[in-house]
Amino acid sequence: MLNELKTKGKKAKEASYFLSKLSSAKKNLALEKSAVMLLNRSKEIIESNKKDVENARVNNVKASLLDRLILNEQRIASMSEGLVQIAGLDDPVGEVLNMKRLPNGLILGQRRVPMGVIGIIYESRPNVTVDAFGLCLKTGNATILRGGKEAFFSNVKIVGILQEALEQSNLPKTSVQLVENVSRESAVAMMKLHEYLDLLIPRGGAGLIRTVVENSTVPVIETGVGNCHVYVDQYADFEKASSIAINAKTQRPGVCNAAETLLIHSQIAKKFVPVICNQLISKNVEIRGDETVLNYFPKAKMATSEDWSTEYLDLIFAVKVVDSLDDAIDHINRYGTKHSEAIITENYTHAQRFLDEVDAAAVYVNASTRFTDGFEFGFGAEIGISTQKLHARGPMGLKELTSTKYIIYGNGQIRD
Amino acid sequence: MLNELKTKGKKAKEASYFLSKLSSAKKNLALEKSAVMLLNRSKEIIESNKKDVENARVNNVKASLLDRLILNEQRIASMSEGLVQIAGLDDPVGEVLNMKRLPNGLILGQRRVPMGVIGIIYESRPNVTVDAFGLCLKTGNATILRGGKEAFFSNVKIVGILQEALEQSNLPKTSVQLVENVSRESAVAMMKLHEYLDLLIPRGGAGLIRTVVENSTVPVIETGVGNCHVYVDQYADFEKASSIAINAKTQRPGVCNAAETLLIHSQIAKKFVPVICNQLISKNVEIRGDETVLNYFPKAKMATSEDWSTEYLDLIFAVKVVDSLDDAIDHINRYGTKHSEAIITENYTHAQRFLDEVDAAAVYVNASTRFTDGFEFGFGAEIGISTQKLHARGPMGLKELTSTKYIIYGNGQIRD
Repeated sequence: MLNELKTKGKKAKEASYFLSKLSSAKKNLALEKSAVMLLNRSKEIIESNKKDVENARVNNVKASLLDRLILNEQRIASMSEGLVQIAGLDDPVGEVLNMKRLPNGLILGQRRVPMGVIGIIYESRPNVTVDAFGLCLKTGNATILRGGKEAFFSNVKIVGILQEALEQSNLPKTSVQLVENVSRESAVAMMKLHEYLDLLIPRGGAGLIRTVVENSTVPVIETGVGNCHVYVDQYADFEKASSIAINAKTQRPGVCNAAETLLIHSQIAKKFVPVICNQLISKNVEIRGDETVLNYFPKAKMATSEDWSTEYLDLIFAVKVVDSLDDAIDHINRYGTKHSEAIITENYTHAQRFLDEVDAAAVYVNASTRFTDGFEFGFGAEIGISTQKLHARGPMGLKELTSTKYIIYGNGQIRD
Repeated sequence: MLNELKTKGKKAKEASYFLSKLSSAKKNLALEKSAVMLLNRSKEIIESNKKDVENARVNNVKASLLDRLILNEQRIASMSEGLVQIAGLDDPVGEVLNMKRLPNGLILGQRRVPMGVIGIIYESRPNVTVDAFGLCLKTGNATILRGGKEAFFSNVKIVGILQEALEQSNLPKTSVQLVENVSRESAVAMMKLHEYLDLLIPRGGAGLIRTVVENSTVPVIETGVGNCHVYVDQYADFEKASSIAINAKTQRPGVCNAAETLLIHSQIAKKFVPVICNQLISKNVEIRGDETVLNYFPKAKMATSEDWSTEYLDLIFAVKVVDSLDDAIDHINRYGTKHSEAIITENYTHAQRFLDEVDAAAVYVNASTRFTDGFEFGFGAEIGISTQKLHARGPMGLKELTSTKYIIYGNGQIRD
């Protein structure tokens, strides 16, 4: 397994040197060619996808997984359109930062360059195959993809078509490669491929991400686990608080930037708890409250200490009453996954303190946590949301798929 | 062991929240207080250091290690002065990047924040203890230090004094902690401390760095292994070529940005090989050449294939004749450690191609590789030189010890 991956790694590294020299125009042409070919051959893709869907049905996979697996004309059109949009974005590669002349006459600048080879381990979502390919090609990176086993036939077909599009664009087809042996062994082998991989991005559930962090010798960017909070301060505007809490919980509960715990200041609990809980229940949200919450809203279930650490990804909301801003911040820094956190308040000092003291990728005043997203932030694309502090934090766009190198123009300088 | 480290980790995390809120003025006062106390108590430090030096002599440690271990009044003054200089640098924490108003009215910016807790594993150099403490405190990070065992008594004394200075400055003394159990187990336990450590920086030889990369579940920045090249193109100015090659090899051969292999274009080999080799030999450099080099300079030793991958850190130079710029670039990308690489040429296109195609942290035209250094690059400080592509590449100053978080000011926005 490791040998097969090493061969793929070596080819990817060679392709990456080729890609790193390519003009934006050529990369964009290849992206547009890929978009057209996916569209033209959508019947073939749907045929392959049917095999995956049938297998998934036989194996009784979860409805949510099945929904993400299924491809149709419209979804393929949207994948294709995604590539066209990526082609239209600015190419970050080649930008030179902080260029300056040093006292000894050396001219020094930091040039933005591709990472090299990026590995992506992800679940059974064929759209991620196209998306990851597009973002990596745009930034001059070669990619090794290891998708979920339920999407095997879809991924083989899609990557085959993308490789044809690359060849027709005179680019190495090994710019994108699929790990076809979808086993635990192939995932582990990929994590050990630091000779060739410059970066490994796991996209998926908490279990996958933990496994990658614990086993990978390749630099990793952790993405996407979100135990997010909305804290309603004693100085909150109740209307803003209700609409934001409901939005953060219910607008799309299955995603990482949805809220999982609602914290409410004790001074307003008596009045606000029944109001918000009734509104949440009318939206089919199950409430798991602490004692004070149950006191003011007896229909709630009793929360256990486990609830404070749980990312439900479902219509369940843990609700807790806290005695101060400090307690709210402590709770968030203790139980949160450092993803997205919001305070609802009209108090200036509390707002500033929350921004200062909460340790997370995105910290909000009076807005829904659901905005943590590359498109919402105006990046035009997103490869994932980093919850670590190294390299990238928060939504990652094209720039986050690049590194830099110092370029130095001299005229004979030596060091004394 | 792991429990002891977990306790240290927990305390460091608490200290890091305190430090993240501190004003630059308070951090600078603590740095200056530390500088004064190190100076005032240099006799005590020298006493402790003597125990280490005696043990090291008994254990017959290498002269180069011994030299780095020994402290005297002058060296302590220079460590102290280092802290004063760090206090004088701009504080990167708090800077807000790319602040903008989104179409929905959200105001979004990226605020520079401390990493949190930084672990540093390093060799027996007591000056690194002070340096790492200073750089981390300045950037609002708590630090857990694990120095080499030969410097045990020196480190215990120094960290004790630094902790006193912190307490006298009303800062938590756990802002800096020393791992006193200096064993392989404590190093491994530190690599598994991802619950508390946000970053781990190994400073030392290739073996240490490999061990950390292979075992750490904490995000790592690889530093310092440098198999650097000087390539003398057929269009080189011979005088620049000689002076740069000699400087890169001999000015300080034991450091990572010194050159280890000299590549010479075949068209000029007959003329240039004898010239440069004679000059190098007069500087006591041992030459290990390929067949062509031996042909033109029979006094050279024959190189084996191992020489191309070796970081000598010594007065030994591998010399190889290549047939083209492409061959030079291929050789460097194959055998180099992506640290610092130089071309000597008067040809514009060759210079640009070398800058474009060589994959390294710092790529030079007509200058010595020895300039890859935080002070030379004008950062005023350096925690190490990163040879990886994630987060930081090349010399790392204060900015590289920070992360960012998105701060978002809303007025009730929810997502549609």
